Amino acid sequence: MNSIRIHPEAIERRYAPLNATGAIDGNAANGFLRPPYSDPESAAMALLEQAASGRGLNCRYDAAGNLIIESAGNYSEWIETGSHIDTVPGGGNFDGTAGVVAGLEALLAIQQSESVLTRGVRLRVWRGEESATFGVTSIGSRAAFATLEPQALEKTWQGVTLADAMLSQGVDPVCIKRSQPAISSAERDSIAAFIELHIEQGKVLETGNLDIGIVTAIRGSKRSWIRIRGTFDHSGATPMGSEFRQDANLAMAYMQVELDHLMQRTNSNGADLVQTVGMINPHIHDSARLPLNDNAVTKVSGAACFSFEVRGADAEVVNSYCEKAFALIQNTAVRFGVTVEIDTFSDQPGIAELDPDIQALLADGCDELNLSQMRLPSGAWHDAGTVASQMRHDGSRIPVGMIFIPCRAGISHSRDEYSSPAQIAAGASLLATAMAKLATM
Amino acid sequence: MNSIRIHPEAIERRYAPLNATGAIDGNAANGFLRPPYSDPESAAMALLEQAASGRGLNCRYDAAGNLIIESAGNYSEWIETGSHIDTVPGGGNFDGTAGVVAGLEALLAIQQSESVLTRGVRLRVWRGEESATFGVTSIGSRAAFATLEPQALEKTWQGVTLADAMLSQGVDPVCIKRSQPAISSAERDSIAAFIELHIEQGKVLETGNLDIGIVTAIRGSKRSWIRIRGTFDHSGATPMGSEFRQDANLAMAYMQVELDHLMQRTNSNGADLVQTVGMINPHIHDSARLPLNDNAVTKVSGAACFSFEVRGADAEVVNSYCEKAFALIQNTAVRFGVTVEIDTFSDQPGIAELDPDIQALLADGCDELNLSQMRLPSGAWHDAGTVASQMRHDGSRIPVGMIFIPCRAGISHSRDEYSSPAQIAAGASLLATAMAKLATM
Repeated sequence: MNSIRIHPEAIERRYAPLNATGAIDGNAANGFLRPPYSDPESAAMALLEQAASGRGLNCRYDAAGNLIIESAGNYSEWIETGSHIDTVPGGGNFDGTAGVVAGLEALLAIQQSESVLTRGVRLRVWRGEESATFGVTSIGSRAAFATLEPQALEKTWQGVTLADAMLSQGVDPVCIKRSQPAISSAERDSIAAFIELHIEQGKVLETGNLDIGIVTAIRGSKRSWIRIRGTFDHSGATPMGSEFRQDANLAMAYMQVELDHLMQRTNSNGADLVQTVGMINPHIHDSARLPLNDNAVTKVSGAACFSFEVRGADAEVVNSYCEKAFALIQNTAVRFGVTVEIDTFSDQPGIAELDPDIQALLADGCDELNLSQMRLPSGAWHDAGTVASQMRHDGSRIPVGMIFIPCRAGISHSRDEYSSPAQIAAGASLLATAMAKLATM
Repeated sequence: MNSIRIHPEAIERRYAPLNATGAIDGNAANGFLRPPYSDPESAAMALLEQAASGRGLNCRYDAAGNLIIESAGNYSEWIETGSHIDTVPGGGNFDGTAGVVAGLEALLAIQQSESVLTRGVRLRVWRGEESATFGVTSIGSRAAFATLEPQALEKTWQGVTLADAMLSQGVDPVCIKRSQPAISSAERDSIAAFIELHIEQGKVLETGNLDIGIVTAIRGSKRSWIRIRGTFDHSGATPMGSEFRQDANLAMAYMQVELDHLMQRTNSNGADLVQTVGMINPHIHDSARLPLNDNAVTKVSGAACFSFEVRGADAEVVNSYCEKAFALIQNTAVRFGVTVEIDTFSDQPGIAELDPDIQALLADGCDELNLSQMRLPSGAWHDAGTVASQMRHDGSRIPVGMIFIPCRAGISHSRDEYSSPAQIAAGASLLATAMAKLATM
């Protein structure tokens, strides 16, 4: 089996109609709006379906409205790829779409190579991976495997429930409502491997001037609000020192710095975690819950609040770190005479290790294609993580891999998001080469 | 000259009509609204005028509408007291008013003592000390000495300029407009001493269970906005470390903690400063100036902002500290790869030392009256600071002192602000005793 090369021009041609689908005010330069279960998402799927069926590939939809494009013929096992076609509001056309376009080109290239397949090749175009609108992540892929909680159907965006959005696209939400998978368990068990191509959404590859990232793991995340109550006091008349000042803002700063030190120690002892305090004293915070608006230039702060996110591939490592971090926060609060409330509002376990054989296969593919590469964990969650979380009826897991391609300045979820046709084509070549090998084994 | 004792009942009686003047919805429990140059402020002054003139004291208004209550008779020198009668919106009836009530009771008690005065005694009821409405502090006392900049007249509250508010109370703002003092320079030069009684607005006295604070100095303040620009990045895909993350929120936390350490070192080397970060990432901040609203739970922070206030009595010490603090902030910014802008928006020099002879006189008075006391600086600015800043035509300064009385839990600028009649009476007794001594020397 020789390696397969996909040309940047093929990527550009495939992108042309997609660049007009869901672009804000019809102009890709404004960014995109293809929410989950929306007309633009369905229109993009229809374009892909058209392109694929015109080239001899079979197309169908699962019960959750995910598009399936696959080689014609009966196979007992399938080598799969897939990514999502929805965007965050104002996002770019690469997060998700690059993987879908690369996947379709890979299937077409494999077909054109006239290899004799022992396993079929398949592309899943997932709906609704982005959580920016309905607040639910990986809707399509989780619905496929019945891991989406039925309450998600009641979530709304712009006053419309997810259930109604699904119905508007001709998709009956009944499978989610009944916690039934949108694909059969036989179909699930026939997935011999799943490889997703995605833009990195970071700048590690760009900084290293590398073509490919072979993903080793997918970081999960644990997110909390840390709410601190101090005592409002006159900033001039209250002496320094915690016997006089129960300063919520100052306690918060010490917590942040001490958490940064804890993270440095933890990672230097071999962990691979990231931690982010993204929001501090956000005005969106419920003022009935915490009087952030009573803070003033001339007052010792009586209320402070920050978001605290820890991400790591190994859920046990994340949980054990968070235990230490929460204890540190409580201890610092005591030292400053403030009270603290830790409210963990989201907890998504990661995938500790993606399939090592697929990682090796991808590394070989890079050698053959003369692509530079490194191994790195995925910081963001992906549909591939949903697939990797499933168990087959025999208790085995689906072998899952991921290919990262560089994106400009690491930017995503922005109209400035960009990967070049050459960068996508390099990734698509690797995807096609790896899938072809697995399908002709 | 024997000491003078003023009874809590006298304070209570004097307070009764004032508790009905400017109370929100007519109920003192809701807090007060007596803004500068408002009907309730004038009404409170009229009540005081009525009470004083009915007891043989002379009353008049200066050109800025400040009420002057003084002993009848011609004196070439005057022993003065004074405080303000306005309140912040929703504030209590003690910040300012306690000093006015104590001052009136002191004048009446001195008159009743039938001492032979060699100097007159005088109470100045200042208008508009609070900056909460028009954004200008000590309007009345600064107008008296022509240190209020004419532009202050254009400041507005609820759509009305200060100039129009003055006109609404029959006060012609022309003296401020022309930078002319509202009292004559002869009157200024005749002030032999000025002693203001005020609630502490802190909890040092309450914590120490003390009756009296003898104020040693008045802290000035220097206030800045510190604006930090980092780089927004994906919180999962961006590795830790400042080579990948230009995290504005994290840089801000390190700045706060390092500033706290700098302050501890500076004070342990003999300085007496306080420093407060009262507001962090406030939503009132101009988003065109700094994109604080783009911060998110799942992003490395690209923008952060905090208020930084330093207060100290000695302006040189404050300025030298701020130089070090600003250099520290800049250095920390460099370390985190963020940029920083320091915008000092207010700079009010303090009074490094109140008159030591008056401090000694007040200490003697406490002994005679059996009041427990300590010396402490005033953290807040007061009208007494305005008086202490003036220079007589011979280049000498007016000797100024201040008496602090405890207030419950250190609270001020709140409807929960409170000092008991007994606490105010103790301070008024000291004020009367000290003024009588100075007036009979």
